[in-house]
Amino acid sequence: MDREVGDLSQVTPVIDCAAYAGGSRAAALTVDQIQAALSCDGQFVWIGLYEPEQSLLRQVQQQFGLHDLAIEDAINAHQRPKLELYEDSVFVVLRTAQRVASTGRLEFGETHVFLGRNYIVTVRHGSLRSHVGVRQRCEATPQLLAQGPGYVLYALMDFIVDQYLPIVMQIEEEVQNLEGVVLDDSTAGDAAATEATARIYLLKRDLVSLRRAVAPLADVCNRLLRFDIPHIPADTRPYFRDVYDHIIRLNESIDAQRELLTSALEAHLSLMTVAQNEHMKRITAWAAMIAVPTMIAGIYGMNFANIPELQWKYGYYIALVSMLVASLALYVGFKRSRWL
Amino acid sequence: MDREVGDLSQVTPVIDCAAYAGGSRAAALTVDQIQAALSCDGQFVWIGLYEPEQSLLRQVQQQFGLHDLAIEDAINAHQRPKLELYEDSVFVVLRTAQRVASTGRLEFGETHVFLGRNYIVTVRHGSLRSHVGVRQRCEATPQLLAQGPGYVLYALMDFIVDQYLPIVMQIEEEVQNLEGVVLDDSTAGDAAATEATARIYLLKRDLVSLRRAVAPLADVCNRLLRFDIPHIPADTRPYFRDVYDHIIRLNESIDAQRELLTSALEAHLSLMTVAQNEHMKRITAWAAMIAVPTMIAGIYGMNFANIPELQWKYGYYIALVSMLVASLALYVGFKRSRWL
Amino acid sequence: MDREVGDLSQVTPVIDCAAYAGGSRAAALTVDQIQAALSCDGQFVWIGLYEPEQSLLRQVQQQFGLHDLAIEDAINAHQRPKLELYEDSVFVVLRTAQRVASTGRLEFGETHVFLGRNYIVTVRHGSLRSHVGVRQRCEATPQLLAQGPGYVLYALMDFIVDQYLPIVMQIEEEVQNLEGVVLDDSTAGDAAATEATARIYLLKRDLVSLRRAVAPLADVCNRLLRFDIPHIPADTRPYFRDVYDHIIRLNESIDAQRELLTSALEAHLSLMTVAQNEHMKRITAWAAMIAVPTMIAGIYGMNFANIPELQWKYGYYIALVSMLVASLALYVGFKRSRWL
Amino acid sequence: MDREVGDLSQVTPVIDCAAYAGGSRAAALTVDQIQAALSCDGQFVWIGLYEPEQSLLRQVQQQFGLHDLAIEDAINAHQRPKLELYEDSVFVVLRTAQRVASTGRLEFGETHVFLGRNYIVTVRHGSLRSHVGVRQRCEATPQLLAQGPGYVLYALMDFIVDQYLPIVMQIEEEVQNLEGVVLDDSTAGDAAATEATARIYLLKRDLVSLRRAVAPLADVCNRLLRFDIPHIPADTRPYFRDVYDHIIRLNESIDAQRELLTSALEAHLSLMTVAQNEHMKRITAWAAMIAVPTMIAGIYGMNFANIPELQWKYGYYIALVSMLVASLALYVGFKRSRWL
Amino acid sequence: MDREVGDLSQVTPVIDCAAYAGGSRAAALTVDQIQAALSCDGQFVWIGLYEPEQSLLRQVQQQFGLHDLAIEDAINAHQRPKLELYEDSVFVVLRTAQRVASTGRLEFGETHVFLGRNYIVTVRHGSLRSHVGVRQRCEATPQLLAQGPGYVLYALMDFIVDQYLPIVMQIEEEVQNLEGVVLDDSTAGDAAATEATARIYLLKRDLVSLRRAVAPLADVCNRLLRFDIPHIPADTRPYFRDVYDHIIRLNESIDAQRELLTSALEAHLSLMTVAQNEHMKRITAWAAMIAVPTMIAGIYGMNFANIPELQWKYGYYIALVSMLVASLALYVGFKRSRWL
Repeated sequence: MDREVGDLSQVTPVIDCAAYAGGSRAAALTVDQIQAALSCDGQFVWIGLYEPEQSLLRQVQQQFGLHDLAIEDAINAHQRPKLELYEDSVFVVLRTAQRVASTGRLEFGETHVFLGRNYIVTVRHGSLRSHVGVRQRCEATPQLLAQGPGYVLYALMDFIVDQYLPIVMQIEEEVQNLEGVVLDDSTAGDAAATEATARIYLLKRDLVSLRRAVAPLADVCNRLLRFDIPHIPADTRPYFRDVYDHIIRLNESIDAQRELLTSALEAHLSLMTVAQNEHMKRITAWAAMIAVPTMIAGIYGMNFANIPELQWKYGYYIALVSMLVASLALYVGFKRSRWL
Repeated sequence: MDREVGDLSQVTPVIDCAAYAGGSRAAALTVDQIQAALSCDGQFVWIGLYEPEQSLLRQVQQQFGLHDLAIEDAINAHQRPKLELYEDSVFVVLRTAQRVASTGRLEFGETHVFLGRNYIVTVRHGSLRSHVGVRQRCEATPQLLAQGPGYVLYALMDFIVDQYLPIVMQIEEEVQNLEGVVLDDSTAGDAAATEATARIYLLKRDLVSLRRAVAPLADVCNRLLRFDIPHIPADTRPYFRDVYDHIIRLNESIDAQRELLTSALEAHLSLMTVAQNEHMKRITAWAAMIAVPTMIAGIYGMNFANIPELQWKYGYYIALVSMLVASLALYVGFKRSRWL
Repeated sequence: MDREVGDLSQVTPVIDCAAYAGGSRAAALTVDQIQAALSCDGQFVWIGLYEPEQSLLRQVQQQFGLHDLAIEDAINAHQRPKLELYEDSVFVVLRTAQRVASTGRLEFGETHVFLGRNYIVTVRHGSLRSHVGVRQRCEATPQLLAQGPGYVLYALMDFIVDQYLPIVMQIEEEVQNLEGVVLDDSTAGDAAATEATARIYLLKRDLVSLRRAVAPLADVCNRLLRFDIPHIPADTRPYFRDVYDHIIRLNESIDAQRELLTSALEAHLSLMTVAQNEHMKRITAWAAMIAVPTMIAGIYGMNFANIPELQWKYGYYIALVSMLVASLALYVGFKRSRWL
Repeated sequence: MDREVGDLSQVTPVIDCAAYAGGSRAAALTVDQIQAALSCDGQFVWIGLYEPEQSLLRQVQQQFGLHDLAIEDAINAHQRPKLELYEDSVFVVLRTAQRVASTGRLEFGETHVFLGRNYIVTVRHGSLRSHVGVRQRCEATPQLLAQGPGYVLYALMDFIVDQYLPIVMQIEEEVQNLEGVVLDDSTAGDAAATEATARIYLLKRDLVSLRRAVAPLADVCNRLLRFDIPHIPADTRPYFRDVYDHIIRLNESIDAQRELLTSALEAHLSLMTVAQNEHMKRITAWAAMIAVPTMIAGIYGMNFANIPELQWKYGYYIALVSMLVASLALYVGFKRSRWL
Repeated sequence: MDREVGDLSQVTPVIDCAAYAGGSRAAALTVDQIQAALSCDGQFVWIGLYEPEQSLLRQVQQQFGLHDLAIEDAINAHQRPKLELYEDSVFVVLRTAQRVASTGRLEFGETHVFLGRNYIVTVRHGSLRSHVGVRQRCEATPQLLAQGPGYVLYALMDFIVDQYLPIVMQIEEEVQNLEGVVLDDSTAGDAAATEATARIYLLKRDLVSLRRAVAPLADVCNRLLRFDIPHIPADTRPYFRDVYDHIIRLNESIDAQRELLTSALEAHLSLMTVAQNEHMKRITAWAAMIAVPTMIAGIYGMNFANIPELQWKYGYYIALVSMLVASLALYVGFKRSRWL
């Protein structure tokens, strides 16, 4: 998973680790100090990891007392978005997405979250954009952050879901552009038609990938919203409902774009068949306008001893004129029947 | 979101604001007077806003004590139709639609409604048609308006849903017209076929957009109808059921038109392939009728010293006649096998 | 909605109105006498209306005490099949269908039913076939009619659902005929192919319309069958289950025909592409058999001073024979590779 | 519904009628003796009918006290598979299928079952295969037959569902054969392609019919399995679960084959378009190889007084060679660009 | 079901049979000793069979007291994945898959599991890979194996589900490769296009088969996870949830690939139609560039007595040049309109 962003190589696996009390940052912690901090009442610990090695993750597991299976998931990455309840903690897998500028392809990362009564652990995999903004935003609104780690989970989900919006909007825009290309096909060349078809396919592939990332997110969010998931304070639920709404909107847009692309491809095929008919007619018309004079010329190229016209003084010119007239008659006829 | 309707620029953000008691307009209010009016028993406040600035919205929020998240939604617009319950109020997002006469494209607006025990706030975004008619209609039936703000919500939904009807009916009509064009394809030219294909696609796109606006509306209406949504008096429920029926009808029509358009496109493609076969056969037949005389002419254009026919007195005429006979024979043959 | 059936113009809006006691017709009534009749114990009133004017409908509403919204629905027509419960009555909308003989198109009517404890009101819109048969059949089985107005509703639904059966069966037959035309495409001409395509589309349109009329009927019938709908005696439920079964069968047939038509259209397109390939090959073969002799003729039409063959005594005949041989060789070759 | 199987004409409508006690055949009965037999404790009556006349069916109805509606269903045949509960009996409709050897078409029959506490009545319609085997198999396992008529119903359903298996497996095989034909399209001729398309369509039609017969069967079986259907002893339930599994497998196979056939048709169309492109290129290449020599011949067939080449001693041969060279060059060029 | 793997022929039907106590292997058993071992408290028996003969299976049935129907299923194989509860045991059918290296085709096997309070019986059919690894892995983690036979079932399911992963990933890779071939169609030849189409179809067929094997597995796993299935200790449930997650991922990937392949086929067809148009244009252009000189040559091949140009000294050269100019003009024209 080597990526081209050189300046990420210096990133330490522990992005930030701190205890929060009453909505404010109480103390920065090292991994070793976590267990002690957890035992203090009225404060919670928030640690952010970036592609940690297994040894670090095991250390973190020990500090927070996390479940084996969840840790294994966090090591493997390549999970689908899901929410799992363990006795005393909630494990959430989210997928992040971004469009790589250089290739235009979508790339997906993952963020795993362990949520407990008084801690939240986030593990980020393969995502170029750090979540530092989330922490800053949370620290800027202490009255909300005071709700505890459940609010941090909301802030993180909101942040991640918001990353999908520009991607989906860009696709909506591209679909609209493609519509123009497809429906005005006749003026553009075949190269444009080929490219449009390829673009339609690639957009569809992106939408299929996006759907796989976004659709299960709705389920995760719905469970956070409705069921009795522990460590999510009741006051935070309307916020999750808000995130849920955004996810549903993304999903609806993805589905609508997919349907439009399918229709666009069908319309494209239909238009190209029309174009084929049109070309065939036009080609035929011009071919006839060449074939008829050729036939006349062939007739007067025959070597019969007795072809009176050949001896006429203006026979040649009459032949030329008759060729022209025949071609013109064909031209007019084809024009009338709209073959030209 | 600049639109071409110049006379809307003078519209004030507060369209109307009044207190109602016993179904009749009791007093016009300024925004500052709302809180006082709300404290009077037996009356409710109805305020209508049009694309208000954030400051005005915050002022209104304060007067009615509305929830932060709902207000943020109302500022952002671009919501999907939804119903959200807050402790003491209901927040409803509806989408309005109209066909812009100049471009023929659909344009969607939004109307947000805050419904409380004794108030209703409507916030209109990007809709060209004002809701003034709703207020007039409500004030004209005081016995119904006396049911309170729940009835106003019904009147508004009914008004908005009724806006979709002419749009969907126009599309139904266009689909019927397109059927005619598509099925009588052979007589129309390729230009007509191209246009029909484009029209099919564009109608489908409109239907996809409409569905996104109408389908969640059914859900909103269903919740207003069945569940224990506060502030909706029981007497009003049959009215919401009526609106619900209209929405279902719209939905069914939208789905039926989508299916018909898909079939029309397939039939179109099929018919054009038939037409292609037909053209190919006809072209071939005519080509053969030119090629055979050309071949005969070629034969008698050969320079062999000894070609007896060339010396015949009527050789030339015999050749011409045989060309004609060959072409005629081909013509008859092709006619019989229906290539012509 | 002007129709061609002249003799319907004399139809009075009140088809029949009578009180029934113990399963037998007790007395014919005028609209004014209804309220009095309703107050007699042990009898029920059955009135049948045909496209009544609003004034008559309002009069009927008053006599039976019907709900405003239901009456408005009955005036507007253009409802979808539905069942609505009001406090003391049930309102049912059914759609009727018939194929207009002259045009072959489907036409839909509506029948609205108000069902109360001791009355049933039927309002028929735009249906050519009267429901008189229903009344006769009911009066012929007094022991069943004694079950009250609920049984009349069953008889009416049974009658209406039975109208769909011949329509759907006719479509099944047409689909089978079309299969024959489509799969034996090669022998039929392009005109037949064009017509088959158009027929497929039109049948599909009919099926889409039928589905919109029949599918919600299943829901209506299911509610009559299962839920505690008032005024439906328990003994009548098995009869509604029977109607329900018929509706499900209609639905399944409609869906199966739709799927078959979609496949037929795809197979049709496929077969026409095969035919196109076949024609192209055959055309090419014949073109080659003309082009090669033409080329040979061209060669011996060259004016070189020294072309020895031209001076041969039988040169011309040798040339002709070689043309023939070339053409024959091509013919045999094409036959072998199945291009001919 | 006249069928070609002559030896069925002698079949009597009452196939067999007997009382069973403790799993063994106690006595053969005539229809008149049934009522008496039913009154004996500890035994049940099993009667098998084949396309009975209405009078016989009415007689049977009287003996067992069956419900009117069920009897009417049994007379009409043409029911969909269903299970209906009456007060004291269960009415089950099953569909049987067989492939008619002579035409290869599927033909469907029906078997209706009335199941009571101490009786089972089976009515077979239009099925070529008798159910005699079922009775023999049941009588051969008295310990199971002792479970009563519920076990007989299981044995019958198992027998009927097993009839579908070879049909579905034969279709699976045919689909696999068709895959071969479709994917190796290029070597086979157009006739094969046409036939493959027709076969695909016909198989799909068969699958649509099969699905209509099998899918509701799953529902019937599920109800027998799970709900409190009377007269089905608890011990028999695992057996019905087994039948249910078979039905689900049939359904899954039918759906999978349908999807494969759809894909096969699409792949077929795609392959034929590739073939068309290929042919077009090859035809063009050969056409060019004829057209260029013809053009050269035309040039030297011109009658200009001064064409020096015409006087060259070897001009003719040089012309011939240049024609050949041109054609060869074209040949090589087309080969290289893979048009040949 | 003869397979090419010779060294499997020596495999004995009883792979391994042992008693386990406290997570450790207590004793190897013969089939006859099983019943005795089952009567010892605190230990369970695990026997693995490979395609056992009926007699052996009956012997095993007797030892464990298994249900008749389940044993019949285990003999027949060809079951779909399912879970069935019997009074004192659970019967699970799983399907295994592997890609046969020599043919590239998928081959499916089956593993049947009987799970009781203190025993687990596995019966493997037609699977090339033995489950020996499962036993080794279990024996290596005694603390987990001490949870009893329920944990063994988990280990087995995990092992089998993990077999699907490389298959699905390989298909994902192939789909990506095919995308490249399809979208860069123009450069590849028709042979590549034909092969790509066939590959798309075959991959789709594989996905349909895979889905039939994997989708019901989700249901099986879900029941093990949620409902009160006996003999599954509560501690094992998170592990089954993990397996469930993997199955869902497989399913989502299978569905996504199917959708992509459908789109790829449509895009392919579209691109080939574009290519056809392009070829047709190019062919036409070159044909015109040959036809026009041929026509000019024909004109000057006419034998009119009076064609002044024929007597010009440089007439021939002028004719040649005019031919060239005409062709060049056409060339430039076609280039400009992008036909070349």
